[in-house]
Amino acid sequence: MTAPLSPDQQTSWRAFVESSWALHTRLEDDLRAATGLSMADYHVLVVLSEAPGRRLRMGELAGRLVFSPSRVTYQITTMVKRGLVRKQPCADDGRGSEAVLTDAGLAQLEAAAPLHLKTVRDSFIDLLDDEELAVVGRVFARIRKA
Amino acid sequence: MTAPLSPDQQTSWRAFVESSWALHTRLEDDLRAATGLSMADYHVLVVLSEAPGRRLRMGELAGRLVFSPSRVTYQITTMVKRGLVRKQPCADDGRGSEAVLTDAGLAQLEAAAPLHLKTVRDSFIDLLDDEELAVVGRVFARIRKA
Repeated sequence: MTAPLSPDQQTSWRAFVESSWALHTRLEDDLRAATGLSMADYHVLVVLSEAPGRRLRMGELAGRLVFSPSRVTYQITTMVKRGLVRKQPCADDGRGSEAVLTDAGLAQLEAAAPLHLKTVRDSFIDLLDDEELAVVGRVFARIRKA
Repeated sequence: MTAPLSPDQQTSWRAFVESSWALHTRLEDDLRAATGLSMADYHVLVVLSEAPGRRLRMGELAGRLVFSPSRVTYQITTMVKRGLVRKQPCADDGRGSEAVLTDAGLAQLEAAAPLHLKTVRDSFIDLLDDEELAVVGRVFARIRKA
């Protein structure tokens, strides 16, 4: 039997789960309204733009995005249709496939980044002091690994 | 022009946004697989179960859940169909409507709570020490208010 949360744990958990959920909704809504991109689109564009040759194997992309293989396949299919990425056999060994950022995808990312940055600052970064932000960063890096 | 994030801010932000997104997905997937409830269903059941008379005005419920009015209307409609809540004219003044937890809704919440608690502990609470949890609780309470 799992031990119930203490009152302090309960308070912190409820603040986190309700507030971070609302934050994700706001990030998604603001980004879509300004650019037509979803947060999933945006993350794929960011991760590919930072990869060597702006390309990543599908499996590696899934790992980076914490997506299941079927979810990343679906996500990339919708982005191929919109011309944001290409899908091709892996360049190095021809086994499996990789997603490649297109010039149009890079241009959309560059147009979206300043708008998204403003939401990120207004609704998160600028509300925390440096120490709080460091704790949040450390905690969520640990949660991701777990 | 919005100032770009510093490297430290960037690292913390990316850890938070990617990891909390994956956490919400896990909470939703685990809850649905075990109980058929979504996280939105679950939150409505919790909030109503704690309200006096197990009932809340729709507008108050929207505020508590950080939902838009149209989203809360849609959410309650789906829960009425499944017998988890009733919708009725407000008891005190007959203006507007309120959502009322049904016995079936309470029973589903009581069955789901221990399963959900295990995911919450395993994927979040038990990975943080008391001080980190207090910082996260304080920060996200502030973000919710902003």
